Amino acid sequence: MMLLATPTAVADATAASIFVTVLARGPIARSEIATALGLSAGTISRAVRPLLDSGYLVEDGAGGPPRLGRPVVPLRVVADREFMVGVKLTADHVCGVVVDLLAQVRASREAAVTDTSVPAVVATVTDLVEQLRADAPGPVTRIGIGVGGHVDSAAQLIRFAPFLNWRDVPLPELVSATTGLPVVVENDVNSLTAAEQWFGAGVDVPSFAVVTIGAGIGCGLVIAGSLVHGAVGLAGELGHIPISADGPRCRCGNTGCVETVASEEAILRRVRAASGRDDLDLATAVALGRAGDRDAVGAFTAAGDALGRALAVVANLINPHRIVLSGEGLAASDLFESAARASFATHAFGQAVECDLITRPLPDHTWARGAAAVAIQHLFLGPTPTNGR
Amino acid sequence: MMLLATPTAVADATAASIFVTVLARGPIARSEIATALGLSAGTISRAVRPLLDSGYLVEDGAGGPPRLGRPVVPLRVVADREFMVGVKLTADHVCGVVVDLLAQVRASREAAVTDTSVPAVVATVTDLVEQLRADAPGPVTRIGIGVGGHVDSAAQLIRFAPFLNWRDVPLPELVSATTGLPVVVENDVNSLTAAEQWFGAGVDVPSFAVVTIGAGIGCGLVIAGSLVHGAVGLAGELGHIPISADGPRCRCGNTGCVETVASEEAILRRVRAASGRDDLDLATAVALGRAGDRDAVGAFTAAGDALGRALAVVANLINPHRIVLSGEGLAASDLFESAARASFATHAFGQAVECDLITRPLPDHTWARGAAAVAIQHLFLGPTPTNGR
Ligand SMILES: [Zn+2]
Ligand SMILES: [Zn+2]
Repeated sequence: MMLLATPTAVADATAASIFVTVLARGPIARSEIATALGLSAGTISRAVRPLLDSGYLVEDGAGGPPRLGRPVVPLRVVADREFMVGVKLTADHVCGVVVDLLAQVRASREAAVTDTSVPAVVATVTDLVEQLRADAPGPVTRIGIGVGGHVDSAAQLIRFAPFLNWRDVPLPELVSATTGLPVVVENDVNSLTAAEQWFGAGVDVPSFAVVTIGAGIGCGLVIAGSLVHGAVGLAGELGHIPISADGPRCRCGNTGCVETVASEEAILRRVRAASGRDDLDLATAVALGRAGDRDAVGAFTAAGDALGRALAVVANLINPHRIVLSGEGLAASDLFESAARASFATHAFGQAVECDLITRPLPDHTWARGAAAVAIQHLFLGPTPTNGR
Repeated sequence: MMLLATPTAVADATAASIFVTVLARGPIARSEIATALGLSAGTISRAVRPLLDSGYLVEDGAGGPPRLGRPVVPLRVVADREFMVGVKLTADHVCGVVVDLLAQVRASREAAVTDTSVPAVVATVTDLVEQLRADAPGPVTRIGIGVGGHVDSAAQLIRFAPFLNWRDVPLPELVSATTGLPVVVENDVNSLTAAEQWFGAGVDVPSFAVVTIGAGIGCGLVIAGSLVHGAVGLAGELGHIPISADGPRCRCGNTGCVETVASEEAILRRVRAASGRDDLDLATAVALGRAGDRDAVGAFTAAGDALGRALAVVANLINPHRIVLSGEGLAASDLFESAARASFATHAFGQAVECDLITRPLPDHTWARGAAAVAIQHLFLGPTPTNGR
C-alpha cells in the first residue's frame, strides 16, 4: 500500500482527535480541547506541539481574553498548509477537485472517460491530477479516489467496480506510480461519509449513517467515531437488504432488495410499464409525478415507502444518532420524502424513531470532495488498520 | 453511576487489550503481545507491570525455551485473582452465577420472583448475591446484571423492561447500595455478546454479531472491537426490522417485523390456528413438526426463512466477520436451520454470503455468565463512555 511508504509524524490517534476538534470548533484553546477529549492538559500540549511545528495548526493571535493572567491562545487549522486532490470515477467521466485542509474546494476539473480499460483510466486520472496540481494554490500532497462498488480499503484494491467492469485493480498503486503521490481509494459512499464525519453533518455525533439515493441506494456508517468497512469491505449495502418476501429480481441477482423498488431504475421501470413508453427518461417521470400522473406518483411513493423501511432497518439495527439522506435522487425528494418519512415512522422501533433524519442535497463536486476528505483523514489517521475494519 | 466511584488502576485501554490478548492466547510472551497489538515492547512492559503488581497476570514459570540467552517468561491470567457475580433477571426468576476472571462458572443459584416491584426484585437479587458471595472461592468484587429490554448503558438505567413493566429504574445504584459492590447493568443479548467477545466465538475477529432466537429475536453487535449500543441504547433490535410490506401486527405495535414470523409466539400462533388447538404449547408444536405435521413444518420453515432474511440484513448492512446464532430457540434448530441458511444464502449480497455463520447452543447459566462477563469488561475498560456508544 502506498500510504505505508509515506508515514507522517502527525499520523497518530491523539493528533487526529485534536485536529478534528480544532477543525470543528476552532479557534479553540488547548484547555477546551482537553475538556472535549477527556485528556489532560499536559497530553494535549505535548500532542499539539508537532502539529504546530509542522504547520498544521497555528496559534490564533486574535484569541479570547487572558485568564488568570496567562493569555489564552486559541488554535486553528492552517487551511493552506497543504492541498489534496479528490477524484470521483464514473463510467463516462472523471471529476476532480483540489481541496485545502478544511475540505474547501479550491479548484475543479472534469475529463471524459471514453476507454474504461485500466491503463486508459489511469492515464486520464493522471492528466487530471497534473492539471489540478497546477491549479492548486500550494503543494498537493495526497490523492483520494472514490469509486462505486466493492472497495477493499485495507488492501487498497478495487475488488469490483460494476460500471467499469473492473476486478481486483490496485488503482492507488498505479496512480501513485504515475503521480509520485500517496493515493488512497475508498468506496464513493464511504468517501461522502468521511466528508460528513469530519467536515459536515457528522461532526457533532459519535454515530451516524449517510444514505445516498439515486441510480443505487448506498449507505455509509460511522459507529463510535469510526467508518465501518466490514469484514471484506461490503458494509453498507443498504440497497440490497431484503425488504419483501418476493418481487422482481434485482441487478445483484437476489430478490426483494430495496433497490428493486427504490432505485431510479425501478421507478423508471414502473412508470414505463404503466405508460407503455419504453424510452421514457427520469426527467419525464419526475415531470409526470409533479403533474399528478397517478402511475408516476405511485412509483415515487412506493420508492419512498421502501426507502423509509430501509431507514427503519438502519435505525432499529444500528440506532445511530443521525441519518443523513443525500445523493442525486434528492432532486425529486418532493415526490417521495413524505412517503419515506411516514414509512420510517411506521417501522422504527420505539425511541429509535427519534433518530435525527436530515436531507443534504449534493452541491457540485461533492463526490470528488469526499474522496479528498478521505485523503485528509489518511494524513492524520494513517492507513486503515487491517484488524479494525 | 456506581462504577465511577470505584476506579481501578487497570481500567485503561492498553491494559484491557493486554488482558484480552493474554486471556485468548496465554501463556504468551510479552514480545508476542507486542506483535499482536502492534505496540512497542517498551509500551507492553510498562503496561504489564501494574497488571502483575495487582495480581491479574502472573509470569508462568513453565514457559518456553530461552531466546538469545534471555529467558522468555510467558504471562497468564490469574483466574482466581477475584470473582464476579452475574445475574440474569426474568419475569419469574433470577439466575445468578459466580465466575472467575476466565468467566468460568464456579457456582450458581436461582431464586423465584413472585413480586416484580422494584424493591422486591432488589431484595431477591441482594439475597442471591449474598449467597453467591458465600459460595465463591474468593472475594467477589463486582456484579453484572443482564435484563431483556431497553437498557441505557451510558446512564446505567433500565429504560424499559417490558416483562417486568419497569421504566427508568436505576437498578445498579439500588443493588450497589444493598451489596456495597459496584454494579453494572446491560441488555441481556449485549451481555451474551460481551461474553462471546472476550471468552467465546468473538475472540479472534474484530467484528461479529450474536443473534438470539427464542421468545424474541435479539442481536448484539461488536464492530471494530467495541460493543455497539446506539444513540439511546436501542441498537440490535433485529426482531423489529421490517422484512415484509405488511403482515400481522407485532407486539411492538409495528407491522412486518421479523418477530411476527420468527418468534416462538408467531410459530405457536400459526400452529394453533391451523390445528384449532388454542392451548397448544411450544413443545407440542416442536413434536408435531418433528412428526412431519404439515402446518407445524410450515410454521418453522417460515420462521427459518424470516430469520435467514434477517441474517442477510445483518450481513449486507454490517458485513461482520462472523454471525453467531444462539438462544433457547436453537433447541428446535432441526426444524428451521436449513430454511434459515437457504434464505440467508438467497439474500446475502455478493461476497457477504461468505460470512461465517455458526450456531452456539446455550449451556445452563449462559445468560447470567454473560452479565458477569460485562462486569469483567468493566473492571478493565471502565464505564461505557457516554460519547463512544
Ligand atoms: Zn439487490
Ligand atoms: Zn416489532
